[in-house]
Amino acid sequence: MANSDNSPRSLAQAARAGARKLTSLSSNQRSELIARIADALVEHGKAICEANARDMEVAREATSRGELAPELLKRLSIDEARIASLADGIRSLATMDEPIGKTLAHRELGDGLELRQVTSPLGVLLVIFESRPDALPQIAALALRAGNGLILKGGREARHSNEVIHRIIQEALKPDIPAETIGLVHTREDIAELLKLDDVFDLVIPRGSNALVRHIQSNTRIPVLGHADGVCHIYLDADAEFDLAVKLIADSKLDYPAACNAAETLLVHESWFADGRLQRLLGALPGIQWRASSDIAGTLQLPEVEDFHMEYGDAQLALTTVKGIDEAIDHIHAHGSGHTEVIITNNDADAEDFLQRVDSASVFHNASTRFADGYRYGLGAEVGISTSRIHARGPVGVQGLLTTRWLLRGAGHTVGDVKSGDWRFAWKDLDSATS
Amino acid sequence: MANSDNSPRSLAQAARAGARKLTSLSSNQRSELIARIADALVEHGKAICEANARDMEVAREATSRGELAPELLKRLSIDEARIASLADGIRSLATMDEPIGKTLAHRELGDGLELRQVTSPLGVLLVIFESRPDALPQIAALALRAGNGLILKGGREARHSNEVIHRIIQEALKPDIPAETIGLVHTREDIAELLKLDDVFDLVIPRGSNALVRHIQSNTRIPVLGHADGVCHIYLDADAEFDLAVKLIADSKLDYPAACNAAETLLVHESWFADGRLQRLLGALPGIQWRASSDIAGTLQLPEVEDFHMEYGDAQLALTTVKGIDEAIDHIHAHGSGHTEVIITNNDADAEDFLQRVDSASVFHNASTRFADGYRYGLGAEVGISTSRIHARGPVGVQGLLTTRWLLRGAGHTVGDVKSGDWRFAWKDLDSATS
Repeated sequence: MANSDNSPRSLAQAARAGARKLTSLSSNQRSELIARIADALVEHGKAICEANARDMEVAREATSRGELAPELLKRLSIDEARIASLADGIRSLATMDEPIGKTLAHRELGDGLELRQVTSPLGVLLVIFESRPDALPQIAALALRAGNGLILKGGREARHSNEVIHRIIQEALKPDIPAETIGLVHTREDIAELLKLDDVFDLVIPRGSNALVRHIQSNTRIPVLGHADGVCHIYLDADAEFDLAVKLIADSKLDYPAACNAAETLLVHESWFADGRLQRLLGALPGIQWRASSDIAGTLQLPEVEDFHMEYGDAQLALTTVKGIDEAIDHIHAHGSGHTEVIITNNDADAEDFLQRVDSASVFHNASTRFADGYRYGLGAEVGISTSRIHARGPVGVQGLLTTRWLLRGAGHTVGDVKSGDWRFAWKDLDSATS
Repeated sequence: MANSDNSPRSLAQAARAGARKLTSLSSNQRSELIARIADALVEHGKAICEANARDMEVAREATSRGELAPELLKRLSIDEARIASLADGIRSLATMDEPIGKTLAHRELGDGLELRQVTSPLGVLLVIFESRPDALPQIAALALRAGNGLILKGGREARHSNEVIHRIIQEALKPDIPAETIGLVHTREDIAELLKLDDVFDLVIPRGSNALVRHIQSNTRIPVLGHADGVCHIYLDADAEFDLAVKLIADSKLDYPAACNAAETLLVHESWFADGRLQRLLGALPGIQWRASSDIAGTLQLPEVEDFHMEYGDAQLALTTVKGIDEAIDHIHAHGSGHTEVIITNNDADAEDFLQRVDSASVFHNASTRFADGYRYGLGAEVGISTSRIHARGPVGVQGLLTTRWLLRGAGHTVGDVKSGDWRFAWKDLDSATS
């Protein structure tokens, strides 16, 4: 590295200096730089797989000693087919429309004084991810596409894989910008120091368990993008098709129960309980482990729900009846995490009411909760899903890694001239599309 | 008040419940509600002025005892003319285009599954302002326009004025939404409690001194919108008109030196020093109290700059020479606060280079720093100016008090059907303008 001082602060400052160099490149040069990363990953695929094999060997031993959960093994693994598909994703980021410098507002303030609000890089990101080494090149490409510097902290289990991938990316940057634009640290001590640097980092993105996200949120003043919980709800309205309900509930709960966008609670209109449709519904969904609110648990012979703010992460699904859409929405606002909520109904007025009033990042009508995902939304790759209302909300792609700047072009305009009546403000919106 | 429990938490929760009621109103109802506040302020203008007279009396006594700065007296004062102009501002907010529910993105994901990203209220705001009672109705109207709940903390000096204005606003809300949608607290103890409620408040906006902003930033986990410093720079390029430079520097420094958008540092291309233009420039700006960097202070017979990151807030202006645009930009990034920077030049290439590369909220060419203001930008009223890169940057109007939600409309779409090949993702952008 060019900087002899390897302190967390100088790492972060080097990333910011590199990002400013990146921003001064032409749009074409930035695209080529990102495409070069994709090519380099494929070219050095064998080296990545070899490093990954070393991580897998250590991890298998840890698993056999019971020190590592077996699910993590699968997430840790990477092969040449996965590298090829990663490279494809990065190439599509390389060829997307330039996200930097897009005009969001364009206005004459009066007397030829012209204002534009344009998209700009956010600055320097700190991304903390757990065992998946394939997250590293995705995050790096997203950060670069938005003109940002980046410090990554990978999981210990993926250390060899991460180091090789990081070195490949740094080599690919070098012809145009400093390698230090993307830094990598490994230890918990490093991350503790980095989290103190709220004057250098603009955003921290923890990608991993709820515990990781909560730990980061409680230990930094840097703004945190992410979600600690995904307590997603389905409201089954009075007038809804039985088969459609079965299909959507099954997909929302069982397609991938550990995902943050899996459903955790089913709110059913009381008419389903009264006319027996609910009992048939339970029968049609044998793969789900139901838990019911105390008022109906006895009748339905189900275990009781202990806490409605619960991300089960498995086949369990909480169930309660509601009098109607108002009670459903109140329940969601009281117990939800603001992630993703679904209404199943044939009643379009109810659907629109639900879509307008539910205060969550994603709100769906007759679609599975599982669509709440950056790739599925067509954002390209995603850095995470935010349940915060500030900055970016829901699945976050390149847009969430940008900020804006206000550019004003005058010819000697002063506020004094306005005060003395030489000219007056006469705001006029101009075409935003021209750049 | 309806809630018997007057704890900070229940105040904040009542504001959120009120905001949800506000969001469920029609756009017309929200506009009428805001217009009703304007009318009520004018109607009760006499009561406001009487309360203000009591505040002014107490403040004058405090001033004569040396306990209150005399400048604060002017800010505290409010008369019927000011109320009429406040009401006009609020009426223009009432008639602006509906900001809630605007489609920002509209996309078919495939197979008739349709996604929209729409603007939505942020939630509940906590706004802490110092002595100006006229800030109260402005902030309240902005918060309501964006569909938000609001807790206000006013300055002790304006207590009587604030209480009367607050009561008038609450009465105007009552026909449509709970009065508690907008709450008011007075004591430091209240604010300390409110700052702990990061699970209830979505954003805190301190409006006041740098010390206030820093205090809030260090004492809450709620995201803070604002700026602690306004260290604004002017870079005077080699090729710039002498008279234009004099005019822009005078306006930027002297129009209102205490403002955050006043200039604090002049970076001059070294050719101005070499050919004597700089000495003439100093002569042409006698109202400015110059301070120079140590290398030129002796020659220019000026006191030295002690710290380049300094918001003087008076007629002092720091001065140094730079070799060119690169050094000017480096100086700004090293010592600035990211608020507003200006280049004065006749060289269009230099101007564009400066506008593209300077990483500040506002970047101007041949215009006074003093234009960095929500009203002047045509945003209507402003809640503040943000130097953060997250969420809103620069002058913040209604847009900065909004978030987005993702609405997805399907017909039983599941991720399982994609996996089984029933249909595939085929993202297609649709017209954003249709709602």
